Amino acid sequence: MENRCEAPIGVFDSGVGGLTVAREIMRNIPNERIIYFGDTARVPYGSKSKDTVLRYSRQIIRFLRTQDVKAIVVACNTASAYALEEIKKELDIPIIGVVKPGARVAGKATKNGKIGIIGTEATVNSGIYTEFIQAQNPDIQVLGKACPLFVPLVEEGWLKDSVTAEVAGRYLDSLMEQGIDTLILGCTHYPLLRSLLRDIVGEGVTLVNPAYETARELKELLKREHLENPCTGDCEAERYKFYVSDLAEKFKEFANSILPFDIEMTRQINIEEY
Amino acid sequence: MENRCEAPIGVFDSGVGGLTVAREIMRNIPNERIIYFGDTARVPYGSKSKDTVLRYSRQIIRFLRTQDVKAIVVACNTASAYALEEIKKELDIPIIGVVKPGARVAGKATKNGKIGIIGTEATVNSGIYTEFIQAQNPDIQVLGKACPLFVPLVEEGWLKDSVTAEVAGRYLDSLMEQGIDTLILGCTHYPLLRSLLRDIVGEGVTLVNPAYETARELKELLKREHLENPCTGDCEAERYKFYVSDLAEKFKEFANSILPFDIEMTRQINIEEY
Repeated sequence: MENRCEAPIGVFDSGVGGLTVAREIMRNIPNERIIYFGDTARVPYGSKSKDTVLRYSRQIIRFLRTQDVKAIVVACNTASAYALEEIKKELDIPIIGVVKPGARVAGKATKNGKIGIIGTEATVNSGIYTEFIQAQNPDIQVLGKACPLFVPLVEEGWLKDSVTAEVAGRYLDSLMEQGIDTLILGCTHYPLLRSLLRDIVGEGVTLVNPAYETARELKELLKREHLENPCTGDCEAERYKFYVSDLAEKFKEFANSILPFDIEMTRQINIEEY
Repeated sequence: MENRCEAPIGVFDSGVGGLTVAREIMRNIPNERIIYFGDTARVPYGSKSKDTVLRYSRQIIRFLRTQDVKAIVVACNTASAYALEEIKKELDIPIIGVVKPGARVAGKATKNGKIGIIGTEATVNSGIYTEFIQAQNPDIQVLGKACPLFVPLVEEGWLKDSVTAEVAGRYLDSLMEQGIDTLILGCTHYPLLRSLLRDIVGEGVTLVNPAYETARELKELLKREHLENPCTGDCEAERYKFYVSDLAEKFKEFANSILPFDIEMTRQINIEEY
């Protein structure tokens, strides 16, 4: 079993956003090796259909299996919302997404029973956060709002900007009016807007970052399944590997601005072949 | 030859934006049949690499050939910039893009020899507008500016909005300061922002819409190659057919808001199979 434990965790996302999840895994479970895949040739997923996101996710999982991963983290909210439940049935290794951990913490955090969830059109329209939260407590009201401009604003680098603040104000207006006390950042790019969103919602609203909760859940899962990496071998040798379907250099630059260390290499593959 | 003349024109884009080009073709050459393909499963192209855009374009052309098209219009600025020259060598039917027609008109329109070009990161960084304009007149100065937020703002429907005006002001600021007298709307979504852009640049700047020029060039091309549709048969029978790689219903709604008539049907195909 020891070899199995030393196998890497597969982490995937539609692009660079899932690095915020990978970062939390690196912080929380530093012993674990990671194979990250970002689907930069087909990004974004948030405006695409369930069938398409499911087909893309299956291709990525076929690729990750070639890398002999011991568990998979779907680091993309849209893929977690649209594909995880289907894919789980087809796999013989553990797989978790970012939605359930985020929903669980939000359900515990709310005091007035009003939770807001912001994300892509796909994530919000799927209603999956509502489903998971109300499975814990059917009395909780969940209010969703798609924020399609947030990802391009983050990618433009306008993280603390008057335009972004104006857009955020419009998006959050109705949620705030309805008195939410908890807000789920339901897209991997949104934690990068955390301080701007904090200014808009004020100190009275708890911000939930599913990335952080997912890393914690992964840690527990590995323990429960006896899959923790004992790190008896050479843990430093290429502990983290990064693959993308397009623009490896651009990905590396973005990754180096998010991760607490510099990536040396990113490899590009043709994901349509999987 | 008559059968060949009655064959449709293939028009493709990364998504819905190319409908602004299809619309101009419909207006200018109403006799012609059109097969439109929008790559909604992999949209956008503007932030992707040349190799990826070329691979996608080749797949789409293989699909269009199955529909027996007599000529092809690359209705996407990014694909015109990155893929057209390569693809042209591989084809035995005429193909045109939107860049050359736009560049030609802009070159004629400028009086002070300073042209601005706005578009996706890919289109602007490719330098292809500059190349085509300076081939006409090497003394013309071409100033490019990528405007990555324009497409999401258009898709959000914020066409006449203070946020969009603020963003546009920032993007155009340096071009205006440098005194351009002509501005190429180098992305198929941008004509939808025409009136907002007009307010920002004022009456003194000529706005060039490559969609319009492309339709005119296509008309001349068909005449020159003796490929005009004489419309002796039943020209009304499904004159326009629409195919997408994802979200056919959503595409139909958007198309119906842009085109001067209602689309009846949009078909979805798996473009990765071509």
